[in-house]
Amino acid sequence: MKKCIVAQSGGPTPVINSSLCGVISQAVESKYYDMVYGGLNGIEGILNEKIIELSKLSDSDIDRLKYTPASALGSCRYKLKNINDCDEEYLKFFNVMDKFNIDDFFYIGGNDSMDTVSKLSSFAKKHGINKNIIGIPKTIDNDLMITDHCPGYGSAAKFIAMSVLETYLDSSVYSDNGVFILETMGRDTGWLSASAAVAKINGKNAVDYIYLPEKAFNIDNFLEDVEKKYKENKHVYIVVSEGIKDVQGNFIAQMNSGIQHDKFGHAQLGGAANFLSSSIKKHKITNRVKSLELGVLQRCGMHISSNADIEEAFMAGTHAVNYAIEGKTGFMVYMRRASNSPYKIEFSTTDVDNVCNKVKYFPANWINSRGNFILEEALDYISPLIGDSVNTSLPDYFYIDKKKHIV
Amino acid sequence: MKKCIVAQSGGPTPVINSSLCGVISQAVESKYYDMVYGGLNGIEGILNEKIIELSKLSDSDIDRLKYTPASALGSCRYKLKNINDCDEEYLKFFNVMDKFNIDDFFYIGGNDSMDTVSKLSSFAKKHGINKNIIGIPKTIDNDLMITDHCPGYGSAAKFIAMSVLETYLDSSVYSDNGVFILETMGRDTGWLSASAAVAKINGKNAVDYIYLPEKAFNIDNFLEDVEKKYKENKHVYIVVSEGIKDVQGNFIAQMNSGIQHDKFGHAQLGGAANFLSSSIKKHKITNRVKSLELGVLQRCGMHISSNADIEEAFMAGTHAVNYAIEGKTGFMVYMRRASNSPYKIEFSTTDVDNVCNKVKYFPANWINSRGNFILEEALDYISPLIGDSVNTSLPDYFYIDKKKHIV
Repeated sequence: MKKCIVAQSGGPTPVINSSLCGVISQAVESKYYDMVYGGLNGIEGILNEKIIELSKLSDSDIDRLKYTPASALGSCRYKLKNINDCDEEYLKFFNVMDKFNIDDFFYIGGNDSMDTVSKLSSFAKKHGINKNIIGIPKTIDNDLMITDHCPGYGSAAKFIAMSVLETYLDSSVYSDNGVFILETMGRDTGWLSASAAVAKINGKNAVDYIYLPEKAFNIDNFLEDVEKKYKENKHVYIVVSEGIKDVQGNFIAQMNSGIQHDKFGHAQLGGAANFLSSSIKKHKITNRVKSLELGVLQRCGMHISSNADIEEAFMAGTHAVNYAIEGKTGFMVYMRRASNSPYKIEFSTTDVDNVCNKVKYFPANWINSRGNFILEEALDYISPLIGDSVNTSLPDYFYIDKKKHIV
Repeated sequence: MKKCIVAQSGGPTPVINSSLCGVISQAVESKYYDMVYGGLNGIEGILNEKIIELSKLSDSDIDRLKYTPASALGSCRYKLKNINDCDEEYLKFFNVMDKFNIDDFFYIGGNDSMDTVSKLSSFAKKHGINKNIIGIPKTIDNDLMITDHCPGYGSAAKFIAMSVLETYLDSSVYSDNGVFILETMGRDTGWLSASAAVAKINGKNAVDYIYLPEKAFNIDNFLEDVEKKYKENKHVYIVVSEGIKDVQGNFIAQMNSGIQHDKFGHAQLGGAANFLSSSIKKHKITNRVKSLELGVLQRCGMHISSNADIEEAFMAGTHAVNYAIEGKTGFMVYMRRASNSPYKIEFSTTDVDNVCNKVKYFPANWINSRGNFILEEALDYISPLIGDSVNTSLPDYFYIDKKKHIV
């Protein structure tokens, strides 16, 4: 009998535990493994032998865990040194695997975690170590290559679309409503902000303009668009990615204030909406400007998560186990969209090197030429991800057509 | 046959349209009225004859409207001048009522709207005008006198408790989690921040400290508490009302930056969490401090609203109509808690002067002596409001007890 270990890494998502449950359930059910361990705080915990027994969890615990957001095993942001620079961590890792008689390691995470999968599996191959290292995708950013989309994205997209619906109505109640700016996460890619386009009230788009990092942001065009729409409607609803950049590649958020970097050297953003808000006021379009950063709420909203996303995250875990049992290593499980209508996905594997340290950008040809909205193809791609095959899982809120009913 | 008009005022809530639907449904069903008008943008729209026919809405429209957040008729923040200073607006208002043959006016709103109900009904009585003016309570702030609680509060409380559950899990994933500060609305009262105490993970409070405007905020005690808890757990979860004040009555939010005022002279806050965050860093407790302002999301979250709240908001509308048919005027409908277990409320009326321009504060004896948490009595009061009689409507998220399972 074999033993396996599973760990989680990077920023949490609403469904990262659903993938964890997929691994545990399938590992136990397969009877190929007699023990499922969990590494606490990702690779960092495994290196420090912080390991728990997950086979001990009851069926009802697993059932609750499947619907619990954030990383139940804890997380880390730990990048292994290059193999050629230093092999100490690698030797330590495989020593711990040996000590606990662990054969297979499942790592649920995003880009940086796939880098870990790649490095560990390369090291094992190079040194003839017979251990399987398997990546399971997870990120609300939806920026992993090869896979049609990433577990976590659909739920975050649904949270954003729901927040747009509700704040659109909330920001529409006065005779002069001014400008509302919603800021989503998305440092390098616009997948999250694009999901706002799903929000419709009485069949019409709630959002007037959406700005993504993939298209250079032009402040003059922006102010022109906002001014025109404000004059027309006395209401402008804008969604913006935290990571929008000007044509020189400078972050708009950076124009407001100093910028900090995280441990990976990623710029820590926040403030794109604030900068745009100040610009609108400075340009004297209106002083009625409200902005809202969704912050971490968008990555932990299990209460409003997508059924499709929960089930796919779970299946990413079960498929990973099946592929490991086949003896595969150094791969990431991914999803292929077999059909859009009816929505149908299939699972497969790809060499993790096709994924790690790469970024899947929002396609330029899914953004309109003015760079202020997304096109229908993008909506066709996003819509099935936030719901299930029966409905879009967004409420059909009612908006009184005041002109129709006026006395 | 009689005609009536209904309007909405002040900040929106998730269930203000449920009350509107209660008025429309009961007015139509009673057959006492042959026409239900809606005034757009509150009293401001009525003065400008911006009036629509609500009787035209279909049953299915009403059904959707009941579950749609924010003020469907639009809103205003318009305060009538004192009767003795100028009666022009009053004459204009009753001229419009006469022009449309309207007998009864239902105004759904908070404190400022009840002031309008009081003034209009006083004017009518003084001048022998035979029109009924009726107030229907609405505010997420829960700060209206007499009524046990206000329609809108339960849903906002549920949104806050849910956000606490999910961001607590999200902020617990690293080995050093630092401090998380959630800022709720609540300029003068702590009803909203108190609702965070409902959030429990595996039966334990998610929140470590809650600060309300009703108890003078002591920054030294705060830093001492945070430092102690951070050393213990490497994680501190704090909830704070935007309106917390020091012992001199100065807003903590004001200590950060300049402050602005709205049209009623209410201070426009924002930034209490930011100030506390800087203080923690300045005091060198930790640099890992995240803060999040829930902003308008907490007042429009119909997707996560309380069933009890929706139904009570609806019934506040139906009861208002019944009392108007009895010929009552100058009152506000209110709720009395007949029993807490099982939770049961009864409707009644109170002279609107008992409500307007007064504030119901969170009871001082429901706050602990250190001023950093609420007591059990407060939880008994809040808990039934966020759910229904069957369950609390918060998910039973699963948290792995890592110590229990460690290898």
